[in-house]
Amino acid sequence: MTNGTLVYKHDEQIEAWIDDATWILTSSFIIFTMQSDLSEGFGLLESGMSSKKNEVNIMIKNVVDVVFGTLTYWVVGYGLTFGTDKGANWFTGVGSFFLDPDEETMGTEFSKFIFQASFCTTATTIVSGAIAERTKLTAYIAFCLLNTVVYSFPAHWVWSKNGWLKQMDVVDVAGVGPVHLVGGVTALVAAIIVKPRYGRFSDDQVTVHGNSVNAVLGLFILWWGWLGFNCGSTFGISGGKWKIAARSAATTILSSCSGGVMAFLLSKIVNRTSSHEYSYGFLLHKRKFDVQLLVNGILGSLVSITGICAVTTTWAAILIGAVGACVTTFGQIALVKMKVDDPVGAVAVHLMGSIWGILCCGLFGLKDDIEHSFSHHDGLVWGGGFYLLGVQTMAAVTIIIWSVVTSFIVLKLIDMTIGLRLTLEEELYGADYCEHNVELPPDVKEYAESVLRK
Amino acid sequence: MTNGTLVYKHDEQIEAWIDDATWILTSSFIIFTMQSDLSEGFGLLESGMSSKKNEVNIMIKNVVDVVFGTLTYWVVGYGLTFGTDKGANWFTGVGSFFLDPDEETMGTEFSKFIFQASFCTTATTIVSGAIAERTKLTAYIAFCLLNTVVYSFPAHWVWSKNGWLKQMDVVDVAGVGPVHLVGGVTALVAAIIVKPRYGRFSDDQVTVHGNSVNAVLGLFILWWGWLGFNCGSTFGISGGKWKIAARSAATTILSSCSGGVMAFLLSKIVNRTSSHEYSYGFLLHKRKFDVQLLVNGILGSLVSITGICAVTTTWAAILIGAVGACVTTFGQIALVKMKVDDPVGAVAVHLMGSIWGILCCGLFGLKDDIEHSFSHHDGLVWGGGFYLLGVQTMAAVTIIIWSVVTSFIVLKLIDMTIGLRLTLEEELYGADYCEHNVELPPDVKEYAESVLRK
Amino acid sequence: MTNGTLVYKHDEQIEAWIDDATWILTSSFIIFTMQSDLSEGFGLLESGMSSKKNEVNIMIKNVVDVVFGTLTYWVVGYGLTFGTDKGANWFTGVGSFFLDPDEETMGTEFSKFIFQASFCTTATTIVSGAIAERTKLTAYIAFCLLNTVVYSFPAHWVWSKNGWLKQMDVVDVAGVGPVHLVGGVTALVAAIIVKPRYGRFSDDQVTVHGNSVNAVLGLFILWWGWLGFNCGSTFGISGGKWKIAARSAATTILSSCSGGVMAFLLSKIVNRTSSHEYSYGFLLHKRKFDVQLLVNGILGSLVSITGICAVTTTWAAILIGAVGACVTTFGQIALVKMKVDDPVGAVAVHLMGSIWGILCCGLFGLKDDIEHSFSHHDGLVWGGGFYLLGVQTMAAVTIIIWSVVTSFIVLKLIDMTIGLRLTLEEELYGADYCEHNVELPPDVKEYAESVLRK
Repeated sequence: MTNGTLVYKHDEQIEAWIDDATWILTSSFIIFTMQSDLSEGFGLLESGMSSKKNEVNIMIKNVVDVVFGTLTYWVVGYGLTFGTDKGANWFTGVGSFFLDPDEETMGTEFSKFIFQASFCTTATTIVSGAIAERTKLTAYIAFCLLNTVVYSFPAHWVWSKNGWLKQMDVVDVAGVGPVHLVGGVTALVAAIIVKPRYGRFSDDQVTVHGNSVNAVLGLFILWWGWLGFNCGSTFGISGGKWKIAARSAATTILSSCSGGVMAFLLSKIVNRTSSHEYSYGFLLHKRKFDVQLLVNGILGSLVSITGICAVTTTWAAILIGAVGACVTTFGQIALVKMKVDDPVGAVAVHLMGSIWGILCCGLFGLKDDIEHSFSHHDGLVWGGGFYLLGVQTMAAVTIIIWSVVTSFIVLKLIDMTIGLRLTLEEELYGADYCEHNVELPPDVKEYAESVLRK
Repeated sequence: MTNGTLVYKHDEQIEAWIDDATWILTSSFIIFTMQSDLSEGFGLLESGMSSKKNEVNIMIKNVVDVVFGTLTYWVVGYGLTFGTDKGANWFTGVGSFFLDPDEETMGTEFSKFIFQASFCTTATTIVSGAIAERTKLTAYIAFCLLNTVVYSFPAHWVWSKNGWLKQMDVVDVAGVGPVHLVGGVTALVAAIIVKPRYGRFSDDQVTVHGNSVNAVLGLFILWWGWLGFNCGSTFGISGGKWKIAARSAATTILSSCSGGVMAFLLSKIVNRTSSHEYSYGFLLHKRKFDVQLLVNGILGSLVSITGICAVTTTWAAILIGAVGACVTTFGQIALVKMKVDDPVGAVAVHLMGSIWGILCCGLFGLKDDIEHSFSHHDGLVWGGGFYLLGVQTMAAVTIIIWSVVTSFIVLKLIDMTIGLRLTLEEELYGADYCEHNVELPPDVKEYAESVLRK
Repeated sequence: MTNGTLVYKHDEQIEAWIDDATWILTSSFIIFTMQSDLSEGFGLLESGMSSKKNEVNIMIKNVVDVVFGTLTYWVVGYGLTFGTDKGANWFTGVGSFFLDPDEETMGTEFSKFIFQASFCTTATTIVSGAIAERTKLTAYIAFCLLNTVVYSFPAHWVWSKNGWLKQMDVVDVAGVGPVHLVGGVTALVAAIIVKPRYGRFSDDQVTVHGNSVNAVLGLFILWWGWLGFNCGSTFGISGGKWKIAARSAATTILSSCSGGVMAFLLSKIVNRTSSHEYSYGFLLHKRKFDVQLLVNGILGSLVSITGICAVTTTWAAILIGAVGACVTTFGQIALVKMKVDDPVGAVAVHLMGSIWGILCCGLFGLKDDIEHSFSHHDGLVWGGGFYLLGVQTMAAVTIIIWSVVTSFIVLKLIDMTIGLRLTLEEELYGADYCEHNVELPPDVKEYAESVLRK
């Protein structure tokens, strides 16, 4: 029948559309943007917060992340996370190593691979900031190769169908656990192992000045990349996902704006009196909006909303962002007090922010009645009881323990073989000169020589 | 019947596609890119045209725009523009304050909110350039909060179904009126109220040098963002809109290229002989392509095409852009002659450019026969008579009066309470040092002290 | 019948969707991003590798590319490439000059125009790097106008339905021939004609130091733009293209990562001992990862994968990228040995990379069984015999000859009329000061005067 044929033609066309659109939705803009967008953003941010003698080196470290991180994710990471061959279980995936799918499945496999590779390299790049200005480039390359493995297991637990946390209905829309908590913990462990920069906590330290314009530029790039990630994580072809994506965008933006307002307020109260001391008191000091506190406050609020973005309200987003900025700001101050040297504040942003972000899901998460996929329980404040909060807490604790143990092993291994730390001489001259032959500024040379003469 | 079931299934699938695609079209790339892309672009542009002692401060002001502007747009702006509750009329919208839509409508509401919030923050960010290098950050924050209201009324008039200009069939595809004219007028009022920088028009003024690489980088980012805005404004799910979007992209690009050629020619004729004097004459001066004139000429042509992009021809676009660049260039020179100090040329670009751009629609606008939505009348040159030109002129005059009055009130209010202007000492040391504790360069310090000693 | 009506409505809706999606797929993100994204990326890259006294000028040259290149592409380029009027043949297109399509076709025509205009301006912008720091801006503007013609013929041969290479089933997914080979050859011819910078190959040359942070930033922007280009080139509305696009993205990323690893290894082996000498030997020199070699190695691997990206495997991509980085690195060294002065290494990246890239298609290309459009033959290693390799070789040879002859004529013409080269005085003071009135740094002035005094 003509009619039947027509219907059949529709079928084909619709099928075509489903394919095409899968491509658009899960891949297009989002995927191709993210990988280099994030590296660019983190690179600029970290470079802008480091001293000038290390700014090229930190950019190169973000190139290393993409290059070595993506390759190892292709070799083993994707398989450990999403492999479904024999042997895959609640703890690990198996299969799809050296990913090379056939023509039938390559559309979805490649799209997923590229999107997930960005998550993996982000977990690594977070660490580069915390150990900036004193770590060897070759050691960092080794770390990139190994950190893919550290990342892939928690990612399997949270996102793979048979991951044990996924099976308990953990909520993590865009990687607050596997990306930011893993990255944050590893950054802390690394910053402790690699020890503070020379003179960082002495009283006569020469203040370090970075390129703040680049730092703010990095913030803008990351801000936008974050929107991509948070929305992209909800992408799909079924009916209601676009609504969830729109909500993710709105909650992400509002949370960051609220975090920004809080960061502005806090930067009026908290005053950096020296490189490692702060004083407090509203209006006690004149207008001095500390750029690093502002930028990191906003980033902290972005981390906080990452896990819950698709399944909460605008009001909750505003609360989450404001608390996220507080947690980040005081986390940063606490770390300085504890003499942990984290040049860019990565630990405060990603570790503190993500702990709060994971718990948030248990407090403010809404049951996903549209897609029945992102969340199956209401959080505590919506009367859902303690179940979800319990799961989220367990996720946080487990991921922290996993990351502390594995990253400690990885970093100690590297330290004992290649050696993590630059020599004092190299550190004083700066990695740009020592690693990349960039011109040595006269004042850096002079200061370095005066220290070395002692 | 099997056949019926099949058809029914198609229905569901197609519905799903309409939803998904609404999402893609109105949201995806465009929306998430714009907000931070524009701030990033304006930030770099303004920072690159300001003196080095203020470049961090101007970046932070663009962060302020996003943070405070988006929040107030969420609180009142969106409601004043698009609210349809009881009380909404030709002059103002009512409702949707503290936007928190239900699951049914959140897809469209959130998408629209995010896209429109970018327009609103752009209208504000334009002003930051005109009052750069001498305005307090806290005063600017207050201005951000209040300017959302100044912007929202004209946006309602032009874009809301019951807005009075919309009802008269005004043509404004992507905000030449509510965004650029409001922003440009406000910038002029603000620049006059806040007065010129110290020594700006004295003969022995030390020439200010910014980071021109960043200024051009900002141009590139804005260029691309503009394409997104002009195309994004035509997005929709019905049949012919994609054609209109493609035309918008083509006219926008061609207009800017034509404006660029004109700007290159003009920069051969116009010669800046000192910080506030120009001479003219082709080939009288050697090759000196003034970066600020070039960049602002291109931006002026982009402003000019903003209102009409979807409903005109390529030839008209080329004419519009060329005239737009002229208007901007000579506007800039006229302002310097009138001793209005606008460090980045925002008034010339956005005020002069948008007046020409609004009138253009009445001259070169084509009746929209594809979607019957962007324009219902032909412009003067296509034989449509004076109706459209009349409406456009009325729109321009009304928006100018509105903006002059409201922004004057807002700025005077802030000046009388917080105070708009930095002290002379702060201005000389630079906002980077005074507001953000950025290192004070020795030559800036020396010059500042020499002036203060007088 | 109700049923029939329903089906009819589907038809309309589906038609609408095909239109809309054509728009999304071929235009949206990809198109609007690319034009200014690439100029921004190339601008930063070139500016970051040039000495500080020329960094503004090189950014402006990238503005010139967009402005003048797009306009001439609108005037003649698009017509010469894709025009189908009477007179169009295997060698050239005719028609569509001053592109102004009617409402029926404007969707596809404008989308294609904008996407293709980016290819054209890229072919030109490649040259700006090779002749940086010593070429007049007005001469460069003239070159922009004329190079559109140089580019358009090979583009017609490779991409137009009746182009002679297309008819022989040449494989070139995203422009390795018309864009990179044409650009690379022209860059070489231009670098030779314009001669080396003053003192470039003398032993007492003052080493030139650029802003390496900007160079790496440019790399990131280009990296991402490349993904857009390589995927965008496969875009379409029929069934399987999204799969091919996903494969293009994966092969592009993996090739560049593999190229990156190779570049890191090479930068351990190759050591720049002076501005124009290298030594070799693994571990003979201390860690000095040369930024330019790293960046160009990655770019070279991106060029290499450009032609074949949609029709090869991940394993082949990794091999192609690694070889591409080698070819680029040793190409760069060879050019220095041959005393060809190419400040940013554009010739090595685009000429060497693209020759390898074109031949690759003949070696590793897979028959396109999904869309039957990108490739109709298997390459040598898949048992397809020598046919494809023969066609690719012929394409390479013909395009090289075409580009050498036409660009030589164009450049000589400009040299004899306007003059290509800055005077020695202008070159020493730098184009930023001479062309754009940017402040002259004291050390540049001093050095220039000391040379001129001789």
